[in-house]
Amino acid sequence: MQIQITSEFIQQIEQLIAQQDGHALKQLLADFHFADIAEILEELNSDQATYLIKLLESEITSEALMEVDDDVREKILDRLSPKEIAVELSEMDTDDAADVVAELDEDIQQKVIEKIDDEELAADIVELISYDEKSAGGLMAKELVQVKETWTVAGCVREMRRQAKNVTRVHSIYVTNRDGILKGRLSLKDLLTAPEKAHISDVYIPKVDYVTVHTEGEEVARVMQKYDLEAIPVVDDNGVLVGRITIDDIVDFIKDEAERDYQMAAGISQGVEADDSIFRLTRARLPWLVLGLFGGLGAVFIMQDFEEALEKYAILFFYTPLIAAMAGNVGVQSSAIIVQGLANDVVKGSLLNRFLKELGLSLINGVALGLLVILFNAVIGKPLDVSLAIGISLLVVIIMAAIIGTFVPIILDKRGIDPAIATGPFITTSNDIFGILIFFYISKAILGF
Amino acid sequence: MQIQITSEFIQQIEQLIAQQDGHALKQLLADFHFADIAEILEELNSDQATYLIKLLESEITSEALMEVDDDVREKILDRLSPKEIAVELSEMDTDDAADVVAELDEDIQQKVIEKIDDEELAADIVELISYDEKSAGGLMAKELVQVKETWTVAGCVREMRRQAKNVTRVHSIYVTNRDGILKGRLSLKDLLTAPEKAHISDVYIPKVDYVTVHTEGEEVARVMQKYDLEAIPVVDDNGVLVGRITIDDIVDFIKDEAERDYQMAAGISQGVEADDSIFRLTRARLPWLVLGLFGGLGAVFIMQDFEEALEKYAILFFYTPLIAAMAGNVGVQSSAIIVQGLANDVVKGSLLNRFLKELGLSLINGVALGLLVILFNAVIGKPLDVSLAIGISLLVVIIMAAIIGTFVPIILDKRGIDPAIATGPFITTSNDIFGILIFFYISKAILGF
Repeated sequence: MQIQITSEFIQQIEQLIAQQDGHALKQLLADFHFADIAEILEELNSDQATYLIKLLESEITSEALMEVDDDVREKILDRLSPKEIAVELSEMDTDDAADVVAELDEDIQQKVIEKIDDEELAADIVELISYDEKSAGGLMAKELVQVKETWTVAGCVREMRRQAKNVTRVHSIYVTNRDGILKGRLSLKDLLTAPEKAHISDVYIPKVDYVTVHTEGEEVARVMQKYDLEAIPVVDDNGVLVGRITIDDIVDFIKDEAERDYQMAAGISQGVEADDSIFRLTRARLPWLVLGLFGGLGAVFIMQDFEEALEKYAILFFYTPLIAAMAGNVGVQSSAIIVQGLANDVVKGSLLNRFLKELGLSLINGVALGLLVILFNAVIGKPLDVSLAIGISLLVVIIMAAIIGTFVPIILDKRGIDPAIATGPFITTSNDIFGILIFFYISKAILGF
Repeated sequence: MQIQITSEFIQQIEQLIAQQDGHALKQLLADFHFADIAEILEELNSDQATYLIKLLESEITSEALMEVDDDVREKILDRLSPKEIAVELSEMDTDDAADVVAELDEDIQQKVIEKIDDEELAADIVELISYDEKSAGGLMAKELVQVKETWTVAGCVREMRRQAKNVTRVHSIYVTNRDGILKGRLSLKDLLTAPEKAHISDVYIPKVDYVTVHTEGEEVARVMQKYDLEAIPVVDDNGVLVGRITIDDIVDFIKDEAERDYQMAAGISQGVEADDSIFRLTRARLPWLVLGLFGGLGAVFIMQDFEEALEKYAILFFYTPLIAAMAGNVGVQSSAIIVQGLANDVVKGSLLNRFLKELGLSLINGVALGLLVILFNAVIGKPLDVSLAIGISLLVVIIMAAIIGTFVPIILDKRGIDPAIATGPFITTSNDIFGILIFFYISKAILGF
């Protein structure tokens, strides 16, 4: 069923492009799904990809263009004229078309929109690019099936067939009043089974979930998941139905969010992929490593300050990587759980409760790990006072790391900052430094150097 | 639009339950969406929740039961009789019903299935629980609209109306031959616009994506996303249509996968949530911390071995947390990029290319960070030979960490092990130890202690 794009196949295509054999290419790719065409485009260089885009039907290429990576699309669009771009846009759903236009340079945007034959589409695009791309307005498409509550079922079926031509998938039929204000919805099933002469106002379901153009994407994803919706209507500030968001756009949104959070936790910015250029990957990774480096240099300073303990208690210095690692690990665990909890809306209850829970949890972990270390030191024959100093420090460091890991994301979230930035190197580095500092102060207090 | 469940509201409900005022409760919750009922159930204790489940219509409670956390559901089901569970199951989609039955103890399973009035449902459940829960068979539902290729459009609409009663959402109509073998699909739109007397064989689309009952969930998710499918039919080994998977189930699957990967990277196992008990959270976190502890103890041993350098080159020991942190950070970055790449199928090309790329990337990062360290040491007045030893070690450690971080997940993946386990404490801890080891050996070679 699935097509496997082999490197031999790509070579064959490259050869046909070099020979400018459009006829053979068209035949070869005739039955291909747009998603497969997209995979092929990603394997070609920009000039070859552009050749294919110009060659194949825009019905297919417009969808394939939406599937390829942003940077691949950017390079292809750079090589197309405003008119050629406009032709591709005409085949796209309005939300995709608006996304593509939004990616163009501003001076090109105007030229492309002017070249769109379909005035309604041009107006839709201008409207859609005016919204914040992460809001419901920026996510929605204008395509939907809309009927007035005053119509009959028979009239509605007629009208629906007309409208459905522009809508790839009919999820729900939205019912509005004379002024376009959203009143309810109607399922295709209800429409099929209702008597032909009935009025829509008698058969529609007045309960309908909706969002406004200003609702944030995350909230849209949450509502659609919670209520298991496959599409949700979008209204403007006056309650007028202006668009709809379908679950497939939300799937992409959820995936992008999850990948971003994951990368942040790993200390990578900018949403890079394994196949990006070394330059892009460096730009995404190096800043976080520099942050970690400064943390390490901070640790050097702290230890220099306690240099006088070196002669008598060298073992303390051997333990610093362990203390730093545990502080980092505990901090990452605590922050990851909170960041996920905040995203899923399960962080409830008072801050005091959360504090007490984290305290209890880190006490258990800290005592267990502290005892393990003391046991280990007893086995390798270290003096008890040093073991105690290390064990107690470890306990305190773990508690501190858990508290910092828990509350930094909560505080960021309350201030409207994405808490995910607190999961990665940020929390590890600050916990490393705090951990080593606490370790030496407690050891000093216990051992008296 | 959205209902906010306040703690005052929960108190009101708890009071009504205490007074056993079923009438008032029914009235209060009459217009509630099942997802909101689910939220309420999660706030109540198990006895209160069970009271509500028994009180409200099973049409609502069956859906609410599917929305609550696994452990909440388990406690409620423990308090219901096999007959009461069977009644809830009768209102569920087959895939949900099978999931619930699979969660029950084996001796209860049989009793519950016997109490289901609808024989077809009982048979469907028995079939569905026989599949691996992470395979397409385990994810699919039996509800679908199926027509034979020999029927007319008019007959098909009649039959479809009948079948549609059991299917909450009609995504696609699947066309089979006399033996039930999947032949193609038909959109509702096509059916609406085709002449009534036409045969299905004349109007259906013979191209249809499908998976078999054995296809892995991840692969199903990948195919549905790639081809933007809202539902996909599932066939058995003979090509007979046996079920379908809808995108909303896949959304949950994708989210669960992403959360698991995220938690693994943070060193948390078992898919816990912020609101879980301290015991569960400890069980998910402590093992990873113990792993980190052993890594730290390994570092203690290594440094003890180099104790003779302490007098002359104490600064080296101050640098160990920095070396360990950088090794850990680079390793996590590299592994996270590869794990995501493997999941998204973008890791292409030969292993040699991947190796050269990672080498180039880590060379750039390593040289930049190494120079920063040498500069820093010059500023604080450290001797150049020591600075060089540290800088060069850092470069080598970064290269090694990047290579390990890249290839451990690739090797795991090739052996059929989930590469995500290599992102978290596992890679950090092993890189910490290797990093410190390399650091001291290189320093020894350069400084000659």
